[in-house]
Amino acid sequence: MGRGHLEPEDILRLEDDRVVLLDQRRLPEQVEYLECRSALEVAEAIRTLAVRGAPAIGIAAAYGYALAGAQGEDLDEAAAALLASRPTAVNLPWAIREMREGGGDLAARARALHRDEVERCRRMSEHAAELLAPGTRALTHCNTGGLATGGIGTALGALGTAWAEGLLEHVLVDETRPLLQGSRLTAWELERAGIPHTVIADSAAGAMMAGGEVNAVLTGADRIAANGDTANKIGTYALAVLAAHHGIPLYVVAPSSTVDLATPTGADIPIEERDAAELTGRFPARNPAFDVTPAALVTAVVTERGVHRPPYAESLSLFRPEEVRL
Amino acid sequence: MGRGHLEPEDILRLEDDRVVLLDQRRLPEQVEYLECRSALEVAEAIRTLAVRGAPAIGIAAAYGYALAGAQGEDLDEAAAALLASRPTAVNLPWAIREMREGGGDLAARARALHRDEVERCRRMSEHAAELLAPGTRALTHCNTGGLATGGIGTALGALGTAWAEGLLEHVLVDETRPLLQGSRLTAWELERAGIPHTVIADSAAGAMMAGGEVNAVLTGADRIAANGDTANKIGTYALAVLAAHHGIPLYVVAPSSTVDLATPTGADIPIEERDAAELTGRFPARNPAFDVTPAALVTAVVTERGVHRPPYAESLSLFRPEEVRL
Repeated sequence: MGRGHLEPEDILRLEDDRVVLLDQRRLPEQVEYLECRSALEVAEAIRTLAVRGAPAIGIAAAYGYALAGAQGEDLDEAAAALLASRPTAVNLPWAIREMREGGGDLAARARALHRDEVERCRRMSEHAAELLAPGTRALTHCNTGGLATGGIGTALGALGTAWAEGLLEHVLVDETRPLLQGSRLTAWELERAGIPHTVIADSAAGAMMAGGEVNAVLTGADRIAANGDTANKIGTYALAVLAAHHGIPLYVVAPSSTVDLATPTGADIPIEERDAAELTGRFPARNPAFDVTPAALVTAVVTERGVHRPPYAESLSLFRPEEVRL
Repeated sequence: MGRGHLEPEDILRLEDDRVVLLDQRRLPEQVEYLECRSALEVAEAIRTLAVRGAPAIGIAAAYGYALAGAQGEDLDEAAAALLASRPTAVNLPWAIREMREGGGDLAARARALHRDEVERCRRMSEHAAELLAPGTRALTHCNTGGLATGGIGTALGALGTAWAEGLLEHVLVDETRPLLQGSRLTAWELERAGIPHTVIADSAAGAMMAGGEVNAVLTGADRIAANGDTANKIGTYALAVLAAHHGIPLYVVAPSSTVDLATPTGADIPIEERDAAELTGRFPARNPAFDVTPAALVTAVVTERGVHRPPYAESLSLFRPEEVRL
């Protein structure tokens, strides 16, 4: 793997007897691949964050399900294990449903789902870049790039597209505690792409906004409820409040596979609580992995279909389940 | 040193030929003391955060200056080295001025300054605790306890007093990146004091407020300008915006030695930028150690003199330099 953009198959792919994943726990120090030989091993890779990012875990689950089929595993058990691996991102149950309800060969179906996500990334990034003015100084949170999507990314894909179009000046990258997806993964992707970037502590975002260093906040999403409430990496809600306080737009960039019309509001989204040891080995801790940003703080949701503005109950309602496919 | 509250001399003290400091870089894993044999070594201990917290570095500087006198060092050079060690907390130049302008034996003067800060902590903690209702679920940032002050603390002193008075139910502790003063030092002090506490990622504070888990935010300060603008650990500004958004009061608890009437507004406070390597060894980073919270977001400033409400230009104006002593 050279420099520049990650190719989809550099990030995750299905081979005859295994799913091969770029191990995101080892980056940026080591570029290593994890080989999963069963759906259970794929579920474990999702649970332990070897692969993370809502669209990417959907694709990984699809590949895991296809692998189960190829290996003669029980498909109901494979689906159950994959579905149980993480609770918040709706892309995971979405991908399993696509695999179970679609027709044809499982491997071909999983690869088509990956190709569709790649194409969705490309389209949503173009739509989102159109929202950015020349000289944009963006702030982003967590990792929403190739690693998170298997394509060019959602929020980070939009920033890459804006950079290619000469609209982007600089990206501030929240380090994103506790697992540092910003300072480990997003900074790594931005460095590979040659895009100017600066890592900050999550708690510095407010001061950077007050100092006039930010004119757009772009994030991804793990699940967007029917009313536009958005679950995303812990800290997104605080950024949304800060952005609103400073009159800075917050754009949520995500594929239609992240929109969940069956979930009415953010209050209905299950929020994963992870091990306190990710924060501190010694003292009591709480470690919610996600938070919910109310729709009122989201300037626009951008999908492959375009820019969706409030009221989201209306603008997102076009995503009837049968229309989610490209 | 047993459990329970830290005694002032457990935290820092002047001996005949050395200043002895509890090394805060090693906590909570190791309780070790650093012995400084010259004012230059004290300045280095301040610069490298072996001792930190605005009141504590003022006391350390006073002890370093007294040590310089005892060792026959050049006092002007000692003062210059101590003053240059860190830029933001005004307690440092305040303490040096107290040492240079006061009368009598330098060692006695430094010890009196420490005793005065201990007494200020006690008084401000009582005033601040009066602001808290029974069942208070507080959120705090960084470390403002014994370690930061040489006494019982500022914001954390207030929480200890409120706990003793049966007013406090629980403390949420921001881990406080990048140096983790919350999860290393504040959690350690709360554990010693037997006060229920939970560490969270800094970015989780907003979600905790939205979830109704916080009804008061208490922080210390590194410098309070004449108009009430307050410099404190990076992230305080974001907390202030979030607290205001949720209708939660933000109390800044600090001794009069932190009030700087010679600094008109927050824009005039020098903000220390620390080494990017504290955040990431590999990618470009910015690491401001402090931010400024506008007075409009501060519900009240609490000092040893009582509770100061807006307009601060008026309520803080009682702190003429000659009145700062107890």
